[in-house]
Amino acid sequence: MPVLGPNQYGKAENRVVRITRDGATHHIKDLNVSVSLSGDMDEVHYSGSNANVLPTDTTKNTVYAFAKEKGIESAEQFGIHLARHFVTSQEPIHRARIRIEEYAWERIEHAGEGEHSFVRKGQETRLAQITYDGSSWEVVSGLKDLTVMNSTNSEFWGYVKDKYTTLPEAYDRILATEVSGRWRFNWTDDEQAMPDWEASYAQVRKHMLAAFTETYSLSLQQTLYAMGARIIDNSGEIDEVRFSLPNKHHFLVDLASFGLKNDNEVYFAADRPYGLIEATVLRDGCEAKIPGDLTNL
Amino acid sequence: MPVLGPNQYGKAENRVVRITRDGATHHIKDLNVSVSLSGDMDEVHYSGSNANVLPTDTTKNTVYAFAKEKGIESAEQFGIHLARHFVTSQEPIHRARIRIEEYAWERIEHAGEGEHSFVRKGQETRLAQITYDGSSWEVVSGLKDLTVMNSTNSEFWGYVKDKYTTLPEAYDRILATEVSGRWRFNWTDDEQAMPDWEASYAQVRKHMLAAFTETYSLSLQQTLYAMGARIIDNSGEIDEVRFSLPNKHHFLVDLASFGLKNDNEVYFAADRPYGLIEATVLRDGCEAKIPGDLTNL
Amino acid sequence: MPVLGPNQYGKAENRVVRITRDGATHHIKDLNVSVSLSGDMDEVHYSGSNANVLPTDTTKNTVYAFAKEKGIESAEQFGIHLARHFVTSQEPIHRARIRIEEYAWERIEHAGEGEHSFVRKGQETRLAQITYDGSSWEVVSGLKDLTVMNSTNSEFWGYVKDKYTTLPEAYDRILATEVSGRWRFNWTDDEQAMPDWEASYAQVRKHMLAAFTETYSLSLQQTLYAMGARIIDNSGEIDEVRFSLPNKHHFLVDLASFGLKNDNEVYFAADRPYGLIEATVLRDGCEAKIPGDLTNL
Amino acid sequence: MPVLGPNQYGKAENRVVRITRDGATHHIKDLNVSVSLSGDMDEVHYSGSNANVLPTDTTKNTVYAFAKEKGIESAEQFGIHLARHFVTSQEPIHRARIRIEEYAWERIEHAGEGEHSFVRKGQETRLAQITYDGSSWEVVSGLKDLTVMNSTNSEFWGYVKDKYTTLPEAYDRILATEVSGRWRFNWTDDEQAMPDWEASYAQVRKHMLAAFTETYSLSLQQTLYAMGARIIDNSGEIDEVRFSLPNKHHFLVDLASFGLKNDNEVYFAADRPYGLIEATVLRDGCEAKIPGDLTNL
Repeated sequence: MPVLGPNQYGKAENRVVRITRDGATHHIKDLNVSVSLSGDMDEVHYSGSNANVLPTDTTKNTVYAFAKEKGIESAEQFGIHLARHFVTSQEPIHRARIRIEEYAWERIEHAGEGEHSFVRKGQETRLAQITYDGSSWEVVSGLKDLTVMNSTNSEFWGYVKDKYTTLPEAYDRILATEVSGRWRFNWTDDEQAMPDWEASYAQVRKHMLAAFTETYSLSLQQTLYAMGARIIDNSGEIDEVRFSLPNKHHFLVDLASFGLKNDNEVYFAADRPYGLIEATVLRDGCEAKIPGDLTNL
Repeated sequence: MPVLGPNQYGKAENRVVRITRDGATHHIKDLNVSVSLSGDMDEVHYSGSNANVLPTDTTKNTVYAFAKEKGIESAEQFGIHLARHFVTSQEPIHRARIRIEEYAWERIEHAGEGEHSFVRKGQETRLAQITYDGSSWEVVSGLKDLTVMNSTNSEFWGYVKDKYTTLPEAYDRILATEVSGRWRFNWTDDEQAMPDWEASYAQVRKHMLAAFTETYSLSLQQTLYAMGARIIDNSGEIDEVRFSLPNKHHFLVDLASFGLKNDNEVYFAADRPYGLIEATVLRDGCEAKIPGDLTNL
Repeated sequence: MPVLGPNQYGKAENRVVRITRDGATHHIKDLNVSVSLSGDMDEVHYSGSNANVLPTDTTKNTVYAFAKEKGIESAEQFGIHLARHFVTSQEPIHRARIRIEEYAWERIEHAGEGEHSFVRKGQETRLAQITYDGSSWEVVSGLKDLTVMNSTNSEFWGYVKDKYTTLPEAYDRILATEVSGRWRFNWTDDEQAMPDWEASYAQVRKHMLAAFTETYSLSLQQTLYAMGARIIDNSGEIDEVRFSLPNKHHFLVDLASFGLKNDNEVYFAADRPYGLIEATVLRDGCEAKIPGDLTNL
Repeated sequence: MPVLGPNQYGKAENRVVRITRDGATHHIKDLNVSVSLSGDMDEVHYSGSNANVLPTDTTKNTVYAFAKEKGIESAEQFGIHLARHFVTSQEPIHRARIRIEEYAWERIEHAGEGEHSFVRKGQETRLAQITYDGSSWEVVSGLKDLTVMNSTNSEFWGYVKDKYTTLPEAYDRILATEVSGRWRFNWTDDEQAMPDWEASYAQVRKHMLAAFTETYSLSLQQTLYAMGARIIDNSGEIDEVRFSLPNKHHFLVDLASFGLKNDNEVYFAADRPYGLIEATVLRDGCEAKIPGDLTNL
């Protein structure tokens, strides 16, 4: 008889918005929370007995109740509350994984008396994945959909040429990518010594962009490594960084047939295909644990 | 025999990125340009004769050539160059309509010597539609995908109740929408007296957000009208504004079954269905010309 | 003071699935219904008074209640029930427009005793728009997202060449498009003489595909006209057809540098830009009423 | 110094359409091919030296050249040709992974003389992932976006109830899901004994749908296991199946307030949140190798 392998279940994409009032000044946390539980779940698969199954609807309710009971200090802290609850309150559940997308809002400036008007920032989506097995924690944070461009200081030459190679070498090109990154914290169990998740995120984002900006690039791989190394060097709480960087090609348009010279001025922004560069950067001596494919955290 | 009605053709979604260099400081314009031509096109439909057809591939080439020849001062000005070219250079073409999406970028701050690093702003997509028939111009500008929220100062009550009405009245609710707006300029032909397209856009955006923020709202319709009226009042170059405002519902979650009180703190952000409020606001004495459905400009 | 122009409001994208049981044999109707109402709505815009406003939530409830009360014989018939209800039951409402997307399902074949298993067909989305102003009806049906291809019998040559033209003529090319079409019925008021909406749709789809298949094409415009004319000729209940046909370019890949001949065998399927051909075909003597931009019905 | 961890690179989403002619009868293969290469790539990350880097542009060219040179018998066979080429022709490349999406087309029936007209089938996207390290092969096939529904024969009760549980038990509900599945072949190296990839796919699809249809379901987990077990039992070439099944909730609408009884007739098809059930089913004695997150193959 075929046997059951690894499995998990839960409610995905619970959209929760939490407003906090500080007098007339309001604050927003806007999250998309997915819950995945695993444990002693053979029977539900083999016979359909739900005796060990906490309904996915209940996991949804728990997300909303915890938004009130615990508040949402950060996505990571909120995920820790949820994961601990599921593993400690239900015996058949041995592991909980909480995945969160966070959308940023900024205030609309105006001369009004209160502060309750916001515009969605619209840049990257922030990510957090919290996994708890009852004894230790794994927290991976990240971001996606942050599009960046250097309009110069990028070259590409000196590569292998085989019979299918037609690409001319480039000595001044646009380098653009839509950053998808994840980073793993080395915090695993001391609840008194948790990182400051919000401050850590701000630092990572700053150093990542600085490395992108300051690297004179001979290949997107080199830029990727520089971005990851800069994070490792500046954030002692992080041991591993994984990036998936699509090379968003900007092709210089050939205008010669129209009697025009294109001196790195006019580009065609292509959709598909695109180069895709994926790599992990590790603190020396640490192990790679973030999976290779980042489409989901 | 069935007869041909209104028709147009062209190349859609030409993605053009134009870099301008001011020493080591670079500037970007990032557009998605669609061309639609119409005129004496009966034969290509009835018999397949392409004698009057400028290929869509040529219209694409023209977009890229013009990005070099004319530069891209603004989306509107670029569209005017293109529309004039097609109508005046090809006798069978009687009307050209250029539609443009513009994506904003902002600089990544860093201590480097040059300024060539950018991050996509990621908020609204700016829109422009330029139509020329050989004698007069219609310019409609706009934006889409700008998501805004007031976390208070919104009510909804006193509405019609019929046998299918179950909605409770609300005296303090979240009001959120994803703004899709278009505004039509009263400039039609005097090329010496064109509006300053960039300055106009900045003004419209500012007043639109101010009206959203400052209106104590009894219905989304009231907010919509306030946004449009504020634009008309502050931008003499604009005669008509059309908004399509989805009411992005944030439902207060009922936490009573868990013994919790939800004092406007925890919301479920719903996807579908959503209220959809659409209306035009006009300068007194002017005519509505922007079509009702804004999904495309 | 700025004045209110054309406006409408309602609940968009109500997803309703209706199961009908014929013994152990089940039938599905799967719709996405949007309601737009207009009428005496000045006050809600100017002052926020909702005295004339039937809540969008009520229009949603009505969609679900009518799915039970009236059943869903066809999308068009369902829209007629809804539009009539809103206009005749609420005095301030002078016009109702119902837009519907319909998703098709087909049975999964199996040897079981009942017939209650389905797979979503996944081809075109069927469309219907029903507008009622209290005295006469306009029904426009349609479809979108139907992708078709002729791998031969298409040419493109004899076109205008200007200084920006570089396209080589083509004597055997792939012609592919993703059909978006709308067709308007000439039925306006005699409720005893309504078209058979389901049968009409099947006929239109059949003739449209036959015309696409059988036309030896010298331009996509010619194919479009043939598709529209064939519908007009075969469906007496239809007076107007509008198509928006993106030319989904399949470029023959140049393999010569690798010593290979590409005899119309290997193509690159491009995303953007694309040619976009839009036109209306009319029964002789009839007027064009379907708007030019079909992205939404 | 931070160190490089696992990495790969290549050109993603090469859209290749291959037409084969059998007299006037044409056949289509329509693929989206992504190439990922890994091996001796330290230097390009650390210093930007491209001496070991075959350009992603070359991998794109190779896809198109191979479509001509080798033809496309099946996605799996095509991926095997490509992976073998990259690993055996470039010494620094130690592993190649080819991922392919395949889109199905069916013929448009007509009375013409040739067979060159097609409509995109529009149901599931077929998937294949081929990995080669120079000595052995791993082939994982799959599909995504196949939406299925049972309108009865599904229950859900007897589950755990905690303080956050409000869900009522269900004794007759709709069960609908959008199948995302992957299955791993036990073929690893004997090129003379490859599975018949096309026949295998057809068998898997058939048995998977039969299991979905014939299982009287007490939980979506039970249905998932039945689908996987049925594949393992009927396809000796497959050792492992992984499914990710979103529970596409269809909520029975409460029509009681309108004086209507809803006897499993009218449903609201919800978007988010959704239950998400993920599990692997294994041939007894085999190991789970397909990663848990299936968003990408």
